[in-house]
Amino acid sequence: MNPKDFQLNINSIFPSSLWTSGNQEIVYQDIKRYTYREFYDRVRRFANGLVNLGVKPGDKVAVLDWDTYHYLESYYAVPMIGAVLHTVNIRYPPEIIFYTMNHAGDKFVIIRDEFLPMVEKAATLFDFVKGWIVYSDTDEEIKTTLNPYYNYEHIVESSEPIDPPDIDEKTIATLFYTSGTTGLPKGVTFSHRKLILHAQGLAMSISYSPLNITEKDVFLGLVPMFHVHSWGVPYLAIMTGKKYVLPGRYDVKKILEMIKNEHVTFSHMVPSILYMILTYHEIEQYAKYLNGWKVIIGGAALPKGLAKMAKSFGITTVGAYGMSETCPLLTAALFTDDMQNLPEEEKFDYMISTGKPAKLVNLRIVDSNYKDVPWDNKTIGEIIVRAPWLTDEYYKDPEKTEELWKDGWLHTGDLAVVDSGGYIHIVDREKDAVKSGGEFIPSLILENIISEIPEVGEVAVIGRPDPKWGERPIAFITLKSKTTKEKIMDELFKFVDTGRIQKWWIPDDIIFIDSMPKTSTGKIDKKDLRTKL
Amino acid sequence: MNPKDFQLNINSIFPSSLWTSGNQEIVYQDIKRYTYREFYDRVRRFANGLVNLGVKPGDKVAVLDWDTYHYLESYYAVPMIGAVLHTVNIRYPPEIIFYTMNHAGDKFVIIRDEFLPMVEKAATLFDFVKGWIVYSDTDEEIKTTLNPYYNYEHIVESSEPIDPPDIDEKTIATLFYTSGTTGLPKGVTFSHRKLILHAQGLAMSISYSPLNITEKDVFLGLVPMFHVHSWGVPYLAIMTGKKYVLPGRYDVKKILEMIKNEHVTFSHMVPSILYMILTYHEIEQYAKYLNGWKVIIGGAALPKGLAKMAKSFGITTVGAYGMSETCPLLTAALFTDDMQNLPEEEKFDYMISTGKPAKLVNLRIVDSNYKDVPWDNKTIGEIIVRAPWLTDEYYKDPEKTEELWKDGWLHTGDLAVVDSGGYIHIVDREKDAVKSGGEFIPSLILENIISEIPEVGEVAVIGRPDPKWGERPIAFITLKSKTTKEKIMDELFKFVDTGRIQKWWIPDDIIFIDSMPKTSTGKIDKKDLRTKL
Repeated sequence: MNPKDFQLNINSIFPSSLWTSGNQEIVYQDIKRYTYREFYDRVRRFANGLVNLGVKPGDKVAVLDWDTYHYLESYYAVPMIGAVLHTVNIRYPPEIIFYTMNHAGDKFVIIRDEFLPMVEKAATLFDFVKGWIVYSDTDEEIKTTLNPYYNYEHIVESSEPIDPPDIDEKTIATLFYTSGTTGLPKGVTFSHRKLILHAQGLAMSISYSPLNITEKDVFLGLVPMFHVHSWGVPYLAIMTGKKYVLPGRYDVKKILEMIKNEHVTFSHMVPSILYMILTYHEIEQYAKYLNGWKVIIGGAALPKGLAKMAKSFGITTVGAYGMSETCPLLTAALFTDDMQNLPEEEKFDYMISTGKPAKLVNLRIVDSNYKDVPWDNKTIGEIIVRAPWLTDEYYKDPEKTEELWKDGWLHTGDLAVVDSGGYIHIVDREKDAVKSGGEFIPSLILENIISEIPEVGEVAVIGRPDPKWGERPIAFITLKSKTTKEKIMDELFKFVDTGRIQKWWIPDDIIFIDSMPKTSTGKIDKKDLRTKL
Repeated sequence: MNPKDFQLNINSIFPSSLWTSGNQEIVYQDIKRYTYREFYDRVRRFANGLVNLGVKPGDKVAVLDWDTYHYLESYYAVPMIGAVLHTVNIRYPPEIIFYTMNHAGDKFVIIRDEFLPMVEKAATLFDFVKGWIVYSDTDEEIKTTLNPYYNYEHIVESSEPIDPPDIDEKTIATLFYTSGTTGLPKGVTFSHRKLILHAQGLAMSISYSPLNITEKDVFLGLVPMFHVHSWGVPYLAIMTGKKYVLPGRYDVKKILEMIKNEHVTFSHMVPSILYMILTYHEIEQYAKYLNGWKVIIGGAALPKGLAKMAKSFGITTVGAYGMSETCPLLTAALFTDDMQNLPEEEKFDYMISTGKPAKLVNLRIVDSNYKDVPWDNKTIGEIIVRAPWLTDEYYKDPEKTEELWKDGWLHTGDLAVVDSGGYIHIVDREKDAVKSGGEFIPSLILENIISEIPEVGEVAVIGRPDPKWGERPIAFITLKSKTTKEKIMDELFKFVDTGRIQKWWIPDDIIFIDSMPKTSTGKIDKKDLRTKL
């Protein structure tokens, strides 16, 4: 490349980052602790080793691991040489793991020893893999029947540091698979340029209140590195010179120990991880170390109850929104200047909302004619976006790509309203929405309200086909204590009287079930519920 | 453009910025106050008006003004339609202003009424200009002999808001001229992409300690909009949703009034402006409004005495470094994590240094063989850079462009050392450096030390050709009180004894002069001094 045409690639992170923060630390549990300079040296050696093994630009290189320093090194070493990092979702069942690796055509696989047995069992299926690169947390010799196999540490030790090539910024750097609620996982890809611009966008977002991330913050990521590349934080952290703590496989006790010992101040996670931490049986002895912890919550809406529980520990929680297809950052619930004078309680309500678009994210909420909905907190539209870091495609799936990018906008499939202050509130997934008489009934709002009835445990509202209205809502409910359909209906009419829901939103029927069916990621499985109608 | 290929252009700033900060204010003295939304509406009307006047993509549109809201609108309206904003340096003598406008080939000129007489006098020379767009701070009718002329406000009022086109990010957005110490000014150009990436780089820098800029800060820029596009702050401010105060022509009293009335918290400027403000005769009555003011200083080194004076007012000053050719941000004297535990006084010394490279800036300090100098605080090298926002060229000057970008690195011509903590200290301009026996004598360090001798007023060290050593240093000195060459030499030898300078740096001669010759920007004119040798 012409040096005047500065390429926004992964390698461009290092010169300034090493200069300003070369002595900054990367910590993996209590197993490894090293500086950025040592990290970069290992990354360059490993990258050169990959080249010597025969990895070519464009080759897919998979990783199967928890959040370790080997994984972090791979985040840089693989794209550094123009190859594509495939972050395999190790939470999938083995046959889906095989499906994604086969679909990607992974040429080399970097794999933690504990995942070897799963692969060894089906070794003959992986004939597309040209080499297995294995490692372990221990110094013991690694035994495997996989062939050919290489020891990660031997590669690092025996290779010279590569002089990083100047990669064209449009080169694909990462690939991972996202499971929709139907069908097989779909691959999404991100170029070097997108990862850099996303990291910058994220850096600009988290420097604002109430997060106020500065040079002193210590990061501990709790979104797995196999999941939407941990929301881009592995690139953000190194770019901005943060002390970065890698937790390995998530274990609440270990996480709390790391927060305590490494003085962690910032993390990002889905709500269920936060819930798991705050309800840990020994939480009281760690409470004082959680005071001042700043947490971005995404992946699902942040329930107010959980946010309040966090606040009681002195934790600041901020909602954010995005999806695999969007790298993921789209919005964050940060403060704008005009919020500064609001009462604390009101600020708190905004902090747990979907928030406002991040810098340079061109986000719209539109009706089916692409007309923007008014900021009235009630007109529902779909969120569509353009931004510097969206996936161009579903890998090898032009048909679904066409659907995703219909009319030149990435369609999120999420339905939302906007309040008068511009804060977005997601009310439904489009495919979960109930459309009655041509109008949406927001199932998330309806479910939240039904869940306030004391006897109700979990609730899911879905649409049943209706000859007159198109669809009508039905509520599936598990009970914490005994009640009747009639009593629940009475409660719902009271909500109508107080103006919290519309009369025509009231479900046509209530179906009691013993337990809610769940997806592999712990969400309520509405697809399964539809079969029960 | 394909919407998947998100273009980093000026127009991409608005969707998120209006969403998050649509009610945020832009203030021009006590003359105009309006919201981002109103600003954007006027920008789009003015842009459409320009199209209707015949402005085509690539056309140069000049502005002659102080820092006004009309200027800010032009910063967006001109590039919005693919035209090139030429920010004319109105501090140049009229013949140089003409030279730059003629060299640029400005097709339209946006001009404040007070600059009309200067242009009218030489109207026939401006035959390349197809139209003059005039405005005034008053409502009075503007009279001019220029032809054809248009009223800015009439254009805004009579035009519909344009639907901003999706400009290719590599399109040139701005052009301005930079005067070297020799020869005619040279033009530098910046694309949309570079301006966006620079604004992001700047935003990431100033979010760090000790500046800690957040959503609450109020900006008042004190680097003229005709000078290195006010260091990119007009794009940064709007992108990040800041209240933005425009001071018009700099007047210390008015500046202090705006700081007081608009609650300004952040500014950027050259040291002489800060000096002018802090030594203002009525400063005491504004002192309390300066407490907490955060100031970035660039354009020249920040003298420690001035930084201390600022500190006594409660002002935080941070050094930054760049040049016209680099957009300008290259380094800033921010804190890194490992500085947090230093004593305050030591932190202070770093805050006034040249600092460390900004994110993604690949900065090197090298000897003539491109070998990086050690971080020993004494080995001198030239600063060379690659970064996402450097000018590609000197406009229409391939020869000087070749020199600037020799061997694929932008050569700053600045000489510097690096201390063991990685903080850069500029010691000289290459063309001012004295090279004796093949080694550099850092004239800035030598001058600083000579200036500590009580009798010395101003001092400039320059190199005199020497048959044995190549060059030897000579000191030009103005005196505050009577002394002799011998006494000064005695003092210098004491500095050698205490290890602050090397013996061979001591000037071969001292020449007393009555006053220092100065350039148009107030710097000591070493070129003139050389004629006195």
